[in-house]
Amino acid sequence: MELKLEELATRLAGSVQGDGRVVLHGVAGIKEAAAGQIAFYADSRFEEWLARTEASALILPPDIDFDRLPSIRVADPRSAFRQAMEIFHVDGRPLPPGIHPSAHVSADAQLGAEVAIGPHVTVGARCRLGDRVTILPGSVIGNDVIIGDDVLIYPNVVVWKETQIGNRVILHSGAVIGDDGFGFLTRDGRHAKVPQLGHVVIEDDVDIGANTCVDRATTGVTRIQRGTRIDNLVQVAHNVTIGEDSILCAQVGIAGSTVVGKRVTLAGQVGIVGHIEVGDGAIVGAQGGVTKSVPAESRVSGYPATPHGLARRMYAALRNLPDLVREVRRLAERVRNLEDKQERSE
Amino acid sequence: MELKLEELATRLAGSVQGDGRVVLHGVAGIKEAAAGQIAFYADSRFEEWLARTEASALILPPDIDFDRLPSIRVADPRSAFRQAMEIFHVDGRPLPPGIHPSAHVSADAQLGAEVAIGPHVTVGARCRLGDRVTILPGSVIGNDVIIGDDVLIYPNVVVWKETQIGNRVILHSGAVIGDDGFGFLTRDGRHAKVPQLGHVVIEDDVDIGANTCVDRATTGVTRIQRGTRIDNLVQVAHNVTIGEDSILCAQVGIAGSTVVGKRVTLAGQVGIVGHIEVGDGAIVGAQGGVTKSVPAESRVSGYPATPHGLARRMYAALRNLPDLVREVRRLAERVRNLEDKQERSE
Amino acid sequence: MELKLEELATRLAGSVQGDGRVVLHGVAGIKEAAAGQIAFYADSRFEEWLARTEASALILPPDIDFDRLPSIRVADPRSAFRQAMEIFHVDGRPLPPGIHPSAHVSADAQLGAEVAIGPHVTVGARCRLGDRVTILPGSVIGNDVIIGDDVLIYPNVVVWKETQIGNRVILHSGAVIGDDGFGFLTRDGRHAKVPQLGHVVIEDDVDIGANTCVDRATTGVTRIQRGTRIDNLVQVAHNVTIGEDSILCAQVGIAGSTVVGKRVTLAGQVGIVGHIEVGDGAIVGAQGGVTKSVPAESRVSGYPATPHGLARRMYAALRNLPDLVREVRRLAERVRNLEDKQERSE
Repeated sequence: MELKLEELATRLAGSVQGDGRVVLHGVAGIKEAAAGQIAFYADSRFEEWLARTEASALILPPDIDFDRLPSIRVADPRSAFRQAMEIFHVDGRPLPPGIHPSAHVSADAQLGAEVAIGPHVTVGARCRLGDRVTILPGSVIGNDVIIGDDVLIYPNVVVWKETQIGNRVILHSGAVIGDDGFGFLTRDGRHAKVPQLGHVVIEDDVDIGANTCVDRATTGVTRIQRGTRIDNLVQVAHNVTIGEDSILCAQVGIAGSTVVGKRVTLAGQVGIVGHIEVGDGAIVGAQGGVTKSVPAESRVSGYPATPHGLARRMYAALRNLPDLVREVRRLAERVRNLEDKQERSE
Repeated sequence: MELKLEELATRLAGSVQGDGRVVLHGVAGIKEAAAGQIAFYADSRFEEWLARTEASALILPPDIDFDRLPSIRVADPRSAFRQAMEIFHVDGRPLPPGIHPSAHVSADAQLGAEVAIGPHVTVGARCRLGDRVTILPGSVIGNDVIIGDDVLIYPNVVVWKETQIGNRVILHSGAVIGDDGFGFLTRDGRHAKVPQLGHVVIEDDVDIGANTCVDRATTGVTRIQRGTRIDNLVQVAHNVTIGEDSILCAQVGIAGSTVVGKRVTLAGQVGIVGHIEVGDGAIVGAQGGVTKSVPAESRVSGYPATPHGLARRMYAALRNLPDLVREVRRLAERVRNLEDKQERSE
Repeated sequence: MELKLEELATRLAGSVQGDGRVVLHGVAGIKEAAAGQIAFYADSRFEEWLARTEASALILPPDIDFDRLPSIRVADPRSAFRQAMEIFHVDGRPLPPGIHPSAHVSADAQLGAEVAIGPHVTVGARCRLGDRVTILPGSVIGNDVIIGDDVLIYPNVVVWKETQIGNRVILHSGAVIGDDGFGFLTRDGRHAKVPQLGHVVIEDDVDIGANTCVDRATTGVTRIQRGTRIDNLVQVAHNVTIGEDSILCAQVGIAGSTVVGKRVTLAGQVGIVGHIEVGDGAIVGAQGGVTKSVPAESRVSGYPATPHGLARRMYAALRNLPDLVREVRRLAERVRNLEDKQERSE
């Protein structure tokens, strides 16, 4: 696809500075961009690249003094760049509608319009798939699964029995949804498996990352609410609820029955114990170990997770702890000297 | 399946309080239960739900004062509830016996009675499968694998060559058993792969979680002993041994050649270095980083892992460390004043 | 395969001590070895096994006093053992050349000589595979993927569209290469997906572990350079670069756009934030949390990652922190006594 800079500016509701007839055929980051591509600049960490980028044009804030290349001026260059990505990236669906002959789709599954099912896919008994669902090669859908419209399931995903999936959900490769929770009853030192009778509900507009696991509930529901985005290799245990519009970065782990609120951010490798609550809007810093409930709109980090300002001071003080030990030792020496002198003077 | 409360009470060896003719068709948690279901109560954190639950009946301890709903009284409600789960949950096997026509089973594989093999499964050369083995869609069994009786392999699992699996083992979706250990020999800064010639042995009654990896030994055996339960996304490296009846929670990682004892509990995201021993009955707290051997029956936590009582005091003191720094500074000031005065008085 | 000890000694360029006619048929570790196998000894931690091993022969350093068993004497027993492993381990390819009839290979894919493709594999449109590529059962190769010579892809791997893979690369089971990066633009509290337009490049002689994820770049390239070895369950985010000959142990996570240098070692469960640099030859200790750039040839550990010597002193001091608190309290008491006496003496 090709567009003139002035055409793109119109679609981005921005104004052109410089030659609006430059022809563009794609987008790229300011460091990697080549001739024919447009990049954006919004973060002063990349300032040096204004002079070095090989892009043919830039998306810039209105007030910046720059005329080396033609540009589109907009209030929010980052957001305009994202729109430009979508304009150039008319990717369409990764698989045309239809069922590959090697797929095994249960005779009693109900399929919506324009469903696309790839090679070596299995769809179990009594499944109901909405319109324009795409299931890429090697994925396995268990029995009694319900899937909404416009859902995209990448290769080698497993969606196990009775899972319910909303609209516009994306499940990335290797994700496992609805496998058993980790529930055992220990008696005389042996662990007997507790049947896992619940299921998983994934609401609209949720993303589940590659090789991420969301376990079914022991009884009841494990639920990921609308708009939440989960990265790769994350563990969501049985009976967890995650609220709307939250972000879970890679390798996060959440133990059973914990409730994570709306608009929560869990940075990479965070761990959260079971049976607690993480309030709406809370932020947990990378590798944080959350051992008790976290209030709404608060920020915690470290192990055990502590309010972020205190955690920063704690870890700064920890760096100086060997010095502090020496200081206390010298102080003890000085106190002993004072005591000696005082004793002698008595 | 339907049962009267009095019938269920007989099977649970409990006594009925209230109307024993109530008809039940399933179990659920006290919070989620609806009409026709029975729940249990054993933990005072859920006390408010005694008044709110919509269950038709409850399993209760003998001495609790409650008559809003009919109940079954037993000494251990949690355990009785688990039995009730099994009574109602006569799920049967997820796949009927037989080999799906799309499966590729090597001609020289030996299959026991009532084996069930789903779509798109591969079973390699010279495999021996016991009775009632179930292999769900998309799983791959390499050459020379031996599997016992009543084993359940979920979809998209990989069991690579020469692995030996006992009876009643469950492998959850996406698990990888018997892939190469991470062994390299570094020479002149380059890492040459060391052939991984050993294999994996999974003993009876072991559970392996979704997307968990158990690597083959470099030479010899990586072994998971009877009754051990492993959660999702766990890494068990080459030549590790894990004793009987241990519990490994999600995202635990164990480095090469470490020996974990019997009845050990490793909480979520624990990491253990290679070539050490974790004694029988030891407990490692969530996110703990174990850097040296842990004695039997001990409890450690934190990084580096420390006896739990000390770790608690350490982290409590760490929270107060910024205050301690200020206190030492003030103390130094007071000592300086004392020294000044003493000097002047001399 | 069988070899006399003297034949093996010739191939390892070592000298025989004892009976060179002993027949060997394999290698094993000194603890597990049985009759007919050769083991090696190089590490004094295993000294007791010199007297106990059941191996038929040993590979030993030249100067060690040992004649219980025949031996091969070489300067570097560990390296010679590795060569012996390869001599006995003439495993060949795990799959003979040819395309299994159940595989779905796109008509316009270009295949080199002696390519082996297993059951239930999918190869997408316009792929180019080099000579002697092996793709094991259930793996999925997306469209426009380029793969070099002698590449080995284990079962149930996903290599998504436009990925480029060099020569002699090994991708272990369940690995996911080239799935979307985790990129969202948040507006009014909702997270809109940013199209991920870049791709992944895996250079020659790279190993990618089981269930490890390497995400495609947002724009540009996520790159793993020549000779780097990555263990299981590792997360490599969008736009990351990892230099040559680095080692990433299991469960490491690297956030977006970070640059890891050459010959870097990241021990198990290390986490690295986005947009920083880890210099050539740096070492990060297990579970380390790297929050800012790390200089070349340095060693860091702990959270937040700190130069290793300081970190050791920090954590040692932390263990003694409860004692230090008590010591400061006693010191304050003594200072108060001194102040009291001084006041009284004035």
